[in-house]
Amino acid sequence: MKLGRILRESPDGPEPRLVAVDVDAGLATDLRVAERRRLQRAGATPEGALRLSGAYFPSSLTGALGAGPEFLRRAEAAVAEHDAESALPLTDLTWAPSVDPPAMLDFAAFEQHLVNAHARGKKELSDVFYERPVYYKMDPVTVIGHGDVVRWAGESSYMDYELELGLVIGSAGTDLQPESALDHLLGVTVLNDFTARDVQSREMPSGFGPAKGKDFATALGPWVTTLDELDLDDLTMLARVNGEEWSRGSTSTLTWSIGELLAYASRSGQLVPGEVIGSGTVGLGCGLELYRSLQPGDVIELEIEGIGVLRNTIGEPPAAFYQPTPKPRTASVTLPERPARQG
Amino acid sequence: MKLGRILRESPDGPEPRLVAVDVDAGLATDLRVAERRRLQRAGATPEGALRLSGAYFPSSLTGALGAGPEFLRRAEAAVAEHDAESALPLTDLTWAPSVDPPAMLDFAAFEQHLVNAHARGKKELSDVFYERPVYYKMDPVTVIGHGDVVRWAGESSYMDYELELGLVIGSAGTDLQPESALDHLLGVTVLNDFTARDVQSREMPSGFGPAKGKDFATALGPWVTTLDELDLDDLTMLARVNGEEWSRGSTSTLTWSIGELLAYASRSGQLVPGEVIGSGTVGLGCGLELYRSLQPGDVIELEIEGIGVLRNTIGEPPAAFYQPTPKPRTASVTLPERPARQG
Repeated sequence: MKLGRILRESPDGPEPRLVAVDVDAGLATDLRVAERRRLQRAGATPEGALRLSGAYFPSSLTGALGAGPEFLRRAEAAVAEHDAESALPLTDLTWAPSVDPPAMLDFAAFEQHLVNAHARGKKELSDVFYERPVYYKMDPVTVIGHGDVVRWAGESSYMDYELELGLVIGSAGTDLQPESALDHLLGVTVLNDFTARDVQSREMPSGFGPAKGKDFATALGPWVTTLDELDLDDLTMLARVNGEEWSRGSTSTLTWSIGELLAYASRSGQLVPGEVIGSGTVGLGCGLELYRSLQPGDVIELEIEGIGVLRNTIGEPPAAFYQPTPKPRTASVTLPERPARQG
Repeated sequence: MKLGRILRESPDGPEPRLVAVDVDAGLATDLRVAERRRLQRAGATPEGALRLSGAYFPSSLTGALGAGPEFLRRAEAAVAEHDAESALPLTDLTWAPSVDPPAMLDFAAFEQHLVNAHARGKKELSDVFYERPVYYKMDPVTVIGHGDVVRWAGESSYMDYELELGLVIGSAGTDLQPESALDHLLGVTVLNDFTARDVQSREMPSGFGPAKGKDFATALGPWVTTLDELDLDDLTMLARVNGEEWSRGSTSTLTWSIGELLAYASRSGQLVPGEVIGSGTVGLGCGLELYRSLQPGDVIELEIEGIGVLRNTIGEPPAAFYQPTPKPRTASVTLPERPARQG
């Protein structure tokens, strides 16, 4: 199944609605409408059908996943029995981010990208990337969807894309093993981890990871394809800018398996429904590795086999942005004496 | 006002409820109960009063802040007119995290801590910390509250605390300037940024920032004190372990002002209601700087003047945890040729 979120007009303005996408038919089924009408045909009152369909299919995918496995069963039933009133032509739709994640982190699971990016930055690639899957946390506030304009990061004159798999968690899990971790994966969406390279390279000497180099836009979409429709081990990944192919890769080049990523993500913590976990950039899957950058107005398309095309347009640089006033160094070390060892 | 969240028994199990705390009286007012009874006295039906009080005072502080300034006005009215049925003795309460943040980031705004921590790690302190306020993102999934047991991070044998201010955002804002950014601040809570030092030091060579060294527990509590009750420029900060004072500092030693932190956090992004922004650790505000560490069963109390005491107990190390199997280095650089410059 392909699950997405679209914006539909309502008396209260645009309302996100969950849809199931049939690419071949060129249609999206509004799941709340389909389920409401199905329930009514099965004997529910209009009010009861509205209440139950709204409870199963809220605006939030994260919220919907809270129902557990019953969510997908209901969605399948609603699609199987849908009628014309719930079927919307794909060509007319406005998309919301495919997921509204309560948490997001991003691994760096493709060795080739790390090797290339460190070579470009003339940095040595630390052993830690081979010892454990390394991640940083992404910003859930600046998530955008298919068709959205990408905010141009303040201070930047080098905007870039990153071609990634977005792993969408379906159910909670803690301290998982790689073998069982995939049971907690709902499916995969396309993830564009937009990056302001120059800001990032100014920040990274802190060792604290990317901040304003990333926290202006992350695109998720166009929808989530559930695991049963995908061969995770061999998905072709593509990036096109203004129609020209820039990047081509495959999940077959993952250094860390998806099971290993999810197990590590769950360690001493918790995977939660609707969480999005990025794979990291596939080798040659960003402009940095290609000596290229994005310009205002560029149309960037990421495509992953079995999912679809996530398209965004790069916005204009802001007229102004806050730039902090540097501080002088003042402090000297005030560490106490190291205590003598006992015994 | 001091706003907290407690767990109350209900037919559906423990339910988080928003409370206003009167420390001198030793009482917390259940805001939904107080507002429900106030509305009923003003002529609402029991059903109407229940519906409206539930809409203004949901389980989530983030949700409640969505009402805008009306939330605080309603809370003040409810407290001013509360009766005995809504007043609960502080001594009997079970606390939830003071905030349920949709996003969390953590600055490093106290130079002294950075200087000390880098000295302990025999690392040079990068100029970037003086050029801009540096932050990393925290994990909202593993937030705990006052009284909770702290999960012991898998792999760690060096558990530590960090004494921090938790800045709680009250209203959305983007691209703010330092002068106006404080208008978006609801108040401050106590934040304990628990850290597994040994895990952190294994991770940090990645340059991606802390991951499993932090993502097991962050404590927020006991409640949020609103800005009108605080002198942000001079709050004493204390840490005690098993009753013994380990750390003492003050917000007067902040290198970056709170306005500067919020302005930078909002740049090319958005502050959102309920977001929590850590100040970073005050100088000498963690065991690392004191050559000390926490042990299972230790009781750690962080206290900030004008707020209160956040108390947690350190849990037992896990019997087992997932440790990834290292990978061999395989990739060679596949960078394309750098294109010749035009013109």
